[in-house]
Amino acid sequence: MQRASIPTKAQLKRWAKLTAAKHRQQEGLFLAEGGKVVDELLRSGRPLDALLVLRERTERWEALLARTPAGAGVYQLSAREWSGLSQDKAPEGVMAVAVAPAPVDPEGLVEGQGPLLLLDQVNNPNNLGALLRTADWFGFRTVLIGAGSVEAAHPKVVRTSMGSLFHLTLIEGVDLGSLLPVLRDRFRVIGSDAGEGIHPHPCPAGTALLLGSESHGLSDELLAMTHERWRIPGGGNAESLSLPQAAAVMMYECVKPLVGGR
Amino acid sequence: MQRASIPTKAQLKRWAKLTAAKHRQQEGLFLAEGGKVVDELLRSGRPLDALLVLRERTERWEALLARTPAGAGVYQLSAREWSGLSQDKAPEGVMAVAVAPAPVDPEGLVEGQGPLLLLDQVNNPNNLGALLRTADWFGFRTVLIGAGSVEAAHPKVVRTSMGSLFHLTLIEGVDLGSLLPVLRDRFRVIGSDAGEGIHPHPCPAGTALLLGSESHGLSDELLAMTHERWRIPGGGNAESLSLPQAAAVMMYECVKPLVGGR
Repeated sequence: MQRASIPTKAQLKRWAKLTAAKHRQQEGLFLAEGGKVVDELLRSGRPLDALLVLRERTERWEALLARTPAGAGVYQLSAREWSGLSQDKAPEGVMAVAVAPAPVDPEGLVEGQGPLLLLDQVNNPNNLGALLRTADWFGFRTVLIGAGSVEAAHPKVVRTSMGSLFHLTLIEGVDLGSLLPVLRDRFRVIGSDAGEGIHPHPCPAGTALLLGSESHGLSDELLAMTHERWRIPGGGNAESLSLPQAAAVMMYECVKPLVGGR
Repeated sequence: MQRASIPTKAQLKRWAKLTAAKHRQQEGLFLAEGGKVVDELLRSGRPLDALLVLRERTERWEALLARTPAGAGVYQLSAREWSGLSQDKAPEGVMAVAVAPAPVDPEGLVEGQGPLLLLDQVNNPNNLGALLRTADWFGFRTVLIGAGSVEAAHPKVVRTSMGSLFHLTLIEGVDLGSLLPVLRDRFRVIGSDAGEGIHPHPCPAGTALLLGSESHGLSDELLAMTHERWRIPGGGNAESLSLPQAAAVMMYECVKPLVGGR
């Protein structure tokens, strides 16, 4: 294992700034906390700037730290230094300073990389994290996140995604209203509609699944640009399904041809 | 509308005690906060002891308060009094003192009331609330909650369920290890197993769907008593689906014959 260093004050200050969205965007770096999250980052092979470990937990994370790629530093932090960066009341004691991936042009997307997931106005970080974890489970490889959604590098998104965000190509800040007319020539666009729609069904190749926020659903403008609308049949009294659960059902049904139906 | 009263100190003290599980169980009452939750309680026709409203929000909730059943009091509380009962930082300002339903004997359950949902060791209140909301959506009418799970009257369960708990028959504190040998003669028992199992499929009448906690899954002892095991096919990198999302997929697939497949 690479020997752990003591961070300088300047480094600590730089990392602490990453708790704010503005600085994450300026620096192109974000904090990814927790054993599972760091493990997935390392498995993904994506670049990282540094691995940080809480001094008294160093031994626990030795195996993880041993996987630090060349060029990334390993730093031991005191409990006090840790608390300036951590989101957790009972921290596990390991965190990566991850490098944000280079932006991808959504207009360049073509069929052939599995279905697309398109998200409009997902403002709740726990919902976005849950959606990314589910997308990763069902083999969606690319997620387009509409402008006005929470950022994927938000600590709660990173945590709730259980590191799944490192296995996905995420395209953020997308103007879905402008992009859909382009995408709909290359993908069959399916929109979720709590009001009316056909039942979910297995999807052909080249599908893009478009979901809206839990409170507002998709706008009429976006729904008008879809090829079909899906509504999950219920039968009970609840007024709606939660967004992460509706999304799981739709992704499950959509990818059946890819994972082998029964 | 029934005229709102000013509560006595004794009433306020009694309601405040309902924030603790011990007192909820002793009194057979629990607090159900929020407009949506109270609306579902009133729609369900279940008994309630009182409706409470934050004084400055009385006008906003007039239509809801007008539906208070005979015999239940309506009380206006000051912001300070409210804060002793409320779970919310930005309270909506309406809350019911709901009456816990009489216990149901799980050994008396017979086929014919839709599928059963059986939950083992669900300790996370947000997960339990989400499961109840989903069960209600998919027309499950009866949920058996294993001993050691969080109580259904926990404020976070009530809130996350969006009031769906008022539309379900909930049987709590169930010893699933003792009950399953009885139930499996009357119901086809399906257990969720992250490790191995067949793909979910539409269920015949008389099905009981058994789910475990997110972290531990079902014990080998319980799994051994099922008729079949289900595993949701994925195809991606995520290690697992979250419990509420896996549950939504299984319930969706299970009830297809009831709600009309495509």
